[in-house]
Amino acid sequence: MWTTGSSHEDTGWECVVIQLAKKGPWMTPALSNAFRTQVLGTSQCSEQTLKETSRSRMGSPMHRVSLGDTWSWQVHPDIDSERHSPSFSVERLTNILDGGLPNTVLRRKVESIIQSDPVFNLKKLYFMTREELYEDAIQKRFHLEKLAWSLGWSEDGPERIYANRVLDGNVNLSLHGVAMNAIRSLGSDEQIAKWGQLCKNFQIITTYAQTELGHGTYLQGLETEATYDEARQEFVIHSPTMTSTKWWPGDLGWSVTHAVVLAQLTCLGVRHGMHAFIVPIRSLEDHTPLPGITVGDIGPKMGLEHIDNGFLQLNHVRVPRENMLSRFAEVLPDGTYQRLGTPQSNYLGMLVTRVQLLCKGILPSLQKACIIATRYSVIRHQSRLRPSDPEAKILEYQTQQQKLLPQLAVSYAFHFTATSLSEFFHSSYSAILKRDFSLLPELHALSTGMKATFADFCAQGAEICRRACGGHGYSKLSGLPTLVARATASCTYEGENTVLYLQVARFLMKSYLQAQASPGATPQKPLPQSVMYIATQRPARCSAQTAADFRCPDVYTTAWAYVSTRLIRDAAHRTQTLMKSGVDQHDAWNQTTVIHLQAAKAYCYFITVKNFKEAVEKLDKEPEIQRVLQRLCDLYALHGVLTNSGDFLHDGFLSGAQVDMAREAFLDLLPLIRKDAILLTDAFDFSDHCLNSALGCYDGHVYERLFEWAQKSPANTQENPAYKKYIRPLMLGWRHKM
Amino acid sequence: MWTTGSSHEDTGWECVVIQLAKKGPWMTPALSNAFRTQVLGTSQCSEQTLKETSRSRMGSPMHRVSLGDTWSWQVHPDIDSERHSPSFSVERLTNILDGGLPNTVLRRKVESIIQSDPVFNLKKLYFMTREELYEDAIQKRFHLEKLAWSLGWSEDGPERIYANRVLDGNVNLSLHGVAMNAIRSLGSDEQIAKWGQLCKNFQIITTYAQTELGHGTYLQGLETEATYDEARQEFVIHSPTMTSTKWWPGDLGWSVTHAVVLAQLTCLGVRHGMHAFIVPIRSLEDHTPLPGITVGDIGPKMGLEHIDNGFLQLNHVRVPRENMLSRFAEVLPDGTYQRLGTPQSNYLGMLVTRVQLLCKGILPSLQKACIIATRYSVIRHQSRLRPSDPEAKILEYQTQQQKLLPQLAVSYAFHFTATSLSEFFHSSYSAILKRDFSLLPELHALSTGMKATFADFCAQGAEICRRACGGHGYSKLSGLPTLVARATASCTYEGENTVLYLQVARFLMKSYLQAQASPGATPQKPLPQSVMYIATQRPARCSAQTAADFRCPDVYTTAWAYVSTRLIRDAAHRTQTLMKSGVDQHDAWNQTTVIHLQAAKAYCYFITVKNFKEAVEKLDKEPEIQRVLQRLCDLYALHGVLTNSGDFLHDGFLSGAQVDMAREAFLDLLPLIRKDAILLTDAFDFSDHCLNSALGCYDGHVYERLFEWAQKSPANTQENPAYKKYIRPLMLGWRHKM
Repeated sequence: MWTTGSSHEDTGWECVVIQLAKKGPWMTPALSNAFRTQVLGTSQCSEQTLKETSRSRMGSPMHRVSLGDTWSWQVHPDIDSERHSPSFSVERLTNILDGGLPNTVLRRKVESIIQSDPVFNLKKLYFMTREELYEDAIQKRFHLEKLAWSLGWSEDGPERIYANRVLDGNVNLSLHGVAMNAIRSLGSDEQIAKWGQLCKNFQIITTYAQTELGHGTYLQGLETEATYDEARQEFVIHSPTMTSTKWWPGDLGWSVTHAVVLAQLTCLGVRHGMHAFIVPIRSLEDHTPLPGITVGDIGPKMGLEHIDNGFLQLNHVRVPRENMLSRFAEVLPDGTYQRLGTPQSNYLGMLVTRVQLLCKGILPSLQKACIIATRYSVIRHQSRLRPSDPEAKILEYQTQQQKLLPQLAVSYAFHFTATSLSEFFHSSYSAILKRDFSLLPELHALSTGMKATFADFCAQGAEICRRACGGHGYSKLSGLPTLVARATASCTYEGENTVLYLQVARFLMKSYLQAQASPGATPQKPLPQSVMYIATQRPARCSAQTAADFRCPDVYTTAWAYVSTRLIRDAAHRTQTLMKSGVDQHDAWNQTTVIHLQAAKAYCYFITVKNFKEAVEKLDKEPEIQRVLQRLCDLYALHGVLTNSGDFLHDGFLSGAQVDMAREAFLDLLPLIRKDAILLTDAFDFSDHCLNSALGCYDGHVYERLFEWAQKSPANTQENPAYKKYIRPLMLGWRHKM
Repeated sequence: MWTTGSSHEDTGWECVVIQLAKKGPWMTPALSNAFRTQVLGTSQCSEQTLKETSRSRMGSPMHRVSLGDTWSWQVHPDIDSERHSPSFSVERLTNILDGGLPNTVLRRKVESIIQSDPVFNLKKLYFMTREELYEDAIQKRFHLEKLAWSLGWSEDGPERIYANRVLDGNVNLSLHGVAMNAIRSLGSDEQIAKWGQLCKNFQIITTYAQTELGHGTYLQGLETEATYDEARQEFVIHSPTMTSTKWWPGDLGWSVTHAVVLAQLTCLGVRHGMHAFIVPIRSLEDHTPLPGITVGDIGPKMGLEHIDNGFLQLNHVRVPRENMLSRFAEVLPDGTYQRLGTPQSNYLGMLVTRVQLLCKGILPSLQKACIIATRYSVIRHQSRLRPSDPEAKILEYQTQQQKLLPQLAVSYAFHFTATSLSEFFHSSYSAILKRDFSLLPELHALSTGMKATFADFCAQGAEICRRACGGHGYSKLSGLPTLVARATASCTYEGENTVLYLQVARFLMKSYLQAQASPGATPQKPLPQSVMYIATQRPARCSAQTAADFRCPDVYTTAWAYVSTRLIRDAAHRTQTLMKSGVDQHDAWNQTTVIHLQAAKAYCYFITVKNFKEAVEKLDKEPEIQRVLQRLCDLYALHGVLTNSGDFLHDGFLSGAQVDMAREAFLDLLPLIRKDAILLTDAFDFSDHCLNSALGCYDGHVYERLFEWAQKSPANTQENPAYKKYIRPLMLGWRHKM
């Protein structure tokens, strides 16, 4: 069931809600509010109206609350008390994170539409088989497309983004978008017009087929061949070996009709490296594989089970000359090859996807894990702070704060970093499409470094949050295993993290050598903006004299700049020393990659600290929010210092006493941030529907929900298949023998 | 199908093998060897015979090779070359790890029996639903019991241990053993006689029910009540709240008939804390829950899906007085309570289980992950070390070595640590059962600390190995996700790691204060043996002057002893300083737990370094093996130093220059160990059956196996359920509109 109702019919829906309200008490407040929010979102309303209507009689923003849970009438007092007398406006912080109040309003409108539609239910996913998950995710995509069409949501519009946010990746055919990115980045204007339209209308369904069974991040090693046949003006796409089998592309296993295939181009007997080709895979009539195509599913994975990641073998498959994407390189009918861009331009599709990933694909996993673990930590009581006390909320324990609050700080640091990177991307990408490649190296280094950093920290952080929930974090019903499995996947897909860090390291080494070429003076070719700091002279000792000094943003930003510069310099020197001692440059590089890796990571950390610091500075018109975010920024920077204290102590930039001061500052921040922890996670404004967690719901009714959700386990509704076959014979067998 | 054949029938089996050999080439060498090994194992044979027969014409120990894979005829040249001209005897190292050649022989005999039985096939597990996995794991247990009975394997004999090793935890009813541990540790002799026999014969099937929905590691907080009714001489076991629902016990959901329930005892109105009670749960006739019992499954988890972890609510369930386990505490008929041990003795069952876990439950996950990732890393080629070279094995890259080789070192370090702890356990446990509790605090601290350390490092290490395999590590067919999910679980079960570390910290603080009470002189009460080092005076500077010095075991062992002592001292002083400044002792403890945690971890690391060092020293009659293990020991210790370099630099014990030397020593070790890496993983002697990994098989045929295994995915054998319903309408819908 889906409705074609437009916003004009909202009042009609409202009536339905009122009808429902009379029927059953359990459904009313949440559901009716969902619809009300939608109505409010479509009509003009003041912020005041919004504030008033978004708080129900239970004193909580209803848009975040579970639909249909009986206990949603009341918030658990242990979490309710956390929301009393907030030191800042959670709603205002949400607006800032959304990029403005109108975005918040629109987002909630979209969410309420999605959440009130039973097709988009997520709870049942926990009890499905892989095939059921696949079918469900295809159904959701189908339903979403119909809904989007009926409501006039444009393909790249914000409503689609918000819908995907609340659906939490549980829709298939998402590689269709990645393939479209590739077509739009690498295709000529004619190709974009033709294939873009076909994709947009779902006349074809596409994936992006790059990775092979034997080759991943190192694209030059891809084996799939595209040989131009000038006689027929066709490319012959071929998988010459078992290892050249395309492996992993999403939606390939069971779903797509076409693939953007990355292959090594040969024209007139000359190899020209990797290019992208649009290749039909399955019949548009009956979906069977086309001649020469062997395609299927690669089997079970540790997460993302709903996606049919697939394999593809091409046996001399022919496609017309026009099917090679040719914005940056073209093959003329006679086989003449013309390059119109840098060899790096083929990576552009991936670059776009990577930048999009940061905010939409990777970070939400950590933010949600923070919400779930923090909420659970004020409901869970364990042990006593002193013998006479009742058992304490586990969030009162320093060790629990040390686990969770840095993850909260990372969540905010990365949000602001992603915003900043996104701005840089938009300003440089249009130039690149016009074949001005001057900013490409820096954009590549930043997007690469941030993808690796986000993935690393989000995967690690989500796992820390999961473990901080004890045994319940191991239950899928907590939502946490799914978040960890997704965040973890991002460490590998779209470029393996270590390889990406080493690409950043090469950029840093190059920049360092460039800066050295003209020490003191302004280099002839200016350094890329994000690495200019490595040419700055700095005192070799940190000036901090008290713990309080370590909460000065200039102190820790300088410390990070200093240490990151030192590590880049040491790595470069070590490589040069080896080369001077006779080691060839490639061996010298390999023998120093461990220290280059460290330098790249420090650079990335510095970038995030700097971005977070600057974002907080800009909030000077929001003093209350600025104060609380400033604490998170301090915690973020200091957590990094303490985790890597050896790097700061190494040459005496920090003394042992100063590290102790930094630790004192860090530990002192924990109870301060702890007071606002629930509010700071509330501000991310992920609804219960979207969190899909028995531990993390807004109302805090953890145990009742775990118990109720567990009842749906097939083991509780079906007969034990093993009892008569094995358990009973096992027990009887021995009794009879005695 | 299962055979009752005893060893006398082995020659008959041999004939069967020869028959089979004539039928199909693919099955012969592996299968026949499996049986041959079994025959050899049962007859007397010299080591020489064993050596000769354990290497087939393909030049590899056949006992490790896949059954039934066509490509097992030949080993991939990229891995075969790694095994040429070994610098030590892999077979001999295996014997050492097994605790002697006879153990290796027996283990392989058991493995060959298990592996040749189709019921014990593991490959199909990757494509099963949760309910199918449950049934399969029960079937395997049933089959194993029959097999053990027919072959005369005793309950605690080595054959059972080896069978469980090769079955890799894929059998259910394992909590039956944990419950039996509890009965044997906490029960009186009469109780052990009665219940032990019933358990042994599977007349009852039991679990250990401690954890509750709202309470875990903090046992004092458990809510389940056991109130003694002296009129009827019965205990009334009751779950007073939702949060007191027992939650998590394995095998409880669908399988067991009885549970050892931990509950708060009340006699004559007085509470006496936690005690253990044997409670019938399900009818022995028809397996239905007994009156007053609500029992079921807790739902899906991120791993261990075959186990029916369950919940249990008890509504005033009555059990006779004799059902309270009463080795250390007894309730007389009139309700008089008699304590016969320390209050800590209730933890004894868990202590036994924890010690058993180290070697059998936790460490194998890391060892197997090392094997899989290392083997894959010599098959996988990616990128070029220099432009003119072919693509290199990824194990040639320093960053890959830095990921994998420290995990290999951890695998060995922990093996020897577990052996040592096990010896200490056996020497102290029997005294404890006789109510001599003098060694209990140290045994508790060591087992607790090692459980947390093993779990932490094995979970982290297995994940590092998994990610080091790139995308394929995300495929369940690699075997790695399962290993990670298991190792990760161990961070939480049997005591949450942070809580355990803090118990160690309390032991350390107590020991430190005891040592301080009589500085210089021998303390009146001697310090526990494992912490005596904290009372030793040591130079405040490391003596190392070159990188080579850091490969001296005394240098790094001393460094670890020094730093661990300093951290214990600093943590204790910080707590005392806070108390002197007026903070109450409990707040002072909570405000310093982060640094106490750090101290506890350093102590645990020191213990493992020391154990590894001492184990290597003892191998002086095996100079080749000693040399290679010495490198691993060096790497292990130095990896810890570099990962925690801040702790060593903090007070100048190491200078920055010395840290650079340690790093140089560490980096220089990598290519040395890399040469032996495949052999060092081979030595763990896990068979292909047991690894169950498409990436990790002995023969190195990674890609063929991945491709073949993936074909079994239901998506490749079934019709797409979503095509007609959603995909086709989606594509047609838009075409029609145009």
